[in-house]
Amino acid sequence: MTKKLFNKVLIIGVGLIGSSIARALRDYELTDQIVGFDISAQVKDKCKKLKIIEEFIDSLEVVNEHFDLIIVCSPLGTYKNIFTVLNKKIKQKCIITDVGSTKLSAIKDFKNTCNNDSISFVPGHPIAGIEKSGPEYGFKELFQNRFCILTPLNENDPTIEPVKKMWQAFGMQIEYMKAERHDRVLAMTSHVPQLIAYSIVATATELEEHMREEVIKYSAAGFRDFTRLAGSDPVMWRDVYLLNKDAVLEMLGRFTEDLTSLQKAIRNNDTNTLEKIFTSTKDIRKIIEKAGQAGSFDPTEK
Amino acid sequence: MTKKLFNKVLIIGVGLIGSSIARALRDYELTDQIVGFDISAQVKDKCKKLKIIEEFIDSLEVVNEHFDLIIVCSPLGTYKNIFTVLNKKIKQKCIITDVGSTKLSAIKDFKNTCNNDSISFVPGHPIAGIEKSGPEYGFKELFQNRFCILTPLNENDPTIEPVKKMWQAFGMQIEYMKAERHDRVLAMTSHVPQLIAYSIVATATELEEHMREEVIKYSAAGFRDFTRLAGSDPVMWRDVYLLNKDAVLEMLGRFTEDLTSLQKAIRNNDTNTLEKIFTSTKDIRKIIEKAGQAGSFDPTEK
Repeated sequence: MTKKLFNKVLIIGVGLIGSSIARALRDYELTDQIVGFDISAQVKDKCKKLKIIEEFIDSLEVVNEHFDLIIVCSPLGTYKNIFTVLNKKIKQKCIITDVGSTKLSAIKDFKNTCNNDSISFVPGHPIAGIEKSGPEYGFKELFQNRFCILTPLNENDPTIEPVKKMWQAFGMQIEYMKAERHDRVLAMTSHVPQLIAYSIVATATELEEHMREEVIKYSAAGFRDFTRLAGSDPVMWRDVYLLNKDAVLEMLGRFTEDLTSLQKAIRNNDTNTLEKIFTSTKDIRKIIEKAGQAGSFDPTEK
Repeated sequence: MTKKLFNKVLIIGVGLIGSSIARALRDYELTDQIVGFDISAQVKDKCKKLKIIEEFIDSLEVVNEHFDLIIVCSPLGTYKNIFTVLNKKIKQKCIITDVGSTKLSAIKDFKNTCNNDSISFVPGHPIAGIEKSGPEYGFKELFQNRFCILTPLNENDPTIEPVKKMWQAFGMQIEYMKAERHDRVLAMTSHVPQLIAYSIVATATELEEHMREEVIKYSAAGFRDFTRLAGSDPVMWRDVYLLNKDAVLEMLGRFTEDLTSLQKAIRNNDTNTLEKIFTSTKDIRKIIEKAGQAGSFDPTEK
């Protein structure tokens, strides 16, 4: 069994990730008490009904009690307000961590709003998720065998340790990275693929109706791989693109250059270029499979 | 049990699809005899070792014996030569069908090469597949609960019936479509998604080495969904793009327009447009899930 790490944890935003954290904290017995905050009454109801979190606060303005850990799991656009309120309210030592997928913006929001010595911020990003949103889809195994990237403000900060231990207890492997580097890597592995998925599904949505119906019907031919990502939470993603704009636009530029080259090769019947590019990409897939990061896809429904 | 449909079947090209067909024909007892043809000695060896097909012919020039069904499962670029030889050699009534994912080109190749009254061509396309290539990855359940599109030259052709029965016996649902329409629908559901997958994996391949390593490491963040498709057979796909060029370029044009709009919205901090598009795409995913065509994705390795 893992040793208890915290007395009282506040989870802000209890969607897929927040609720998975709540389940894991509880089942691995890492804290005595879990309190939730969510702006959605529906989310709160679901959490209570499913016994994920039974105690909620109605406003961050009432954070007078002592939490030793606050985990921010709400969209990136909410950070500034959250930090501003916490900065005002927190009186005793408290670690704040987050799960957002852009780290430069999280750190900037923190620095611009917080000057409270009791608060220590440990920016984090567990690379885990499925395409569903909402607390009912969370599960404590979500984090197992995945990476969690921490981008600490100061690498000698002793408050990194309990945050690290929590993710490790969830089954994650910890990696440290500079925030800027994190944002560029994630632009490529996550933000741009997600944008492309949204884009191609949007293209299909705009087709003439009979074509659209057939695209859905025959989506197993490849299209469905993209729809999985396009089922993700719109508000969360909207914020990601606004807050990781530079890295996303850079990587998107590289991608469109490559796609344009392929388009040109098709137009010019350039078989050699096509075959060469298609062969080179096979290798990366093999490496990902060997690294145990490919997941597995079952063509039948569960 | 299904009634026997054929006496002797020839499978040309025994890769993933050809070997899955061989397994299904044999296990469902739809034919007395299965003969294979493949230009790769390695493929032939694997088929014999795995007892998928034990009898091979060394050249299509020796097709003197009587096959009542010939299934072409080789890349689309090989059709012209195959049809030319079969046109010369076939002396008794024979149905030819295929599994290629562009149908206008298949029909054009047939019409330009065949004038043999003994041959009847039933163009087909089973919408089934995984990202692996080679006979060792085939399995007879590959076709279950998937669609098979037939694009007959003449819809009253009685030779459609046995081909249809074969796919139905494999568990497929048959749909009829005009070849031109098939090619446009598949451009959108299959050929363009596949091209995008190749393209983004190629972009990752060209990154500086340390970035590339991290992209692979953190691919579970979304990128890996695209690598699955990019693991597919290069030669097969090269031919698809050359032979369905017009429809692919049209759909690719629509996609790049949409992606450019998203890019512009990001650059302009246009939150409304982003949120609107991201919300609209969620619906298509839900419809695909309801239609039972989403498959299921297991984030852990098998």
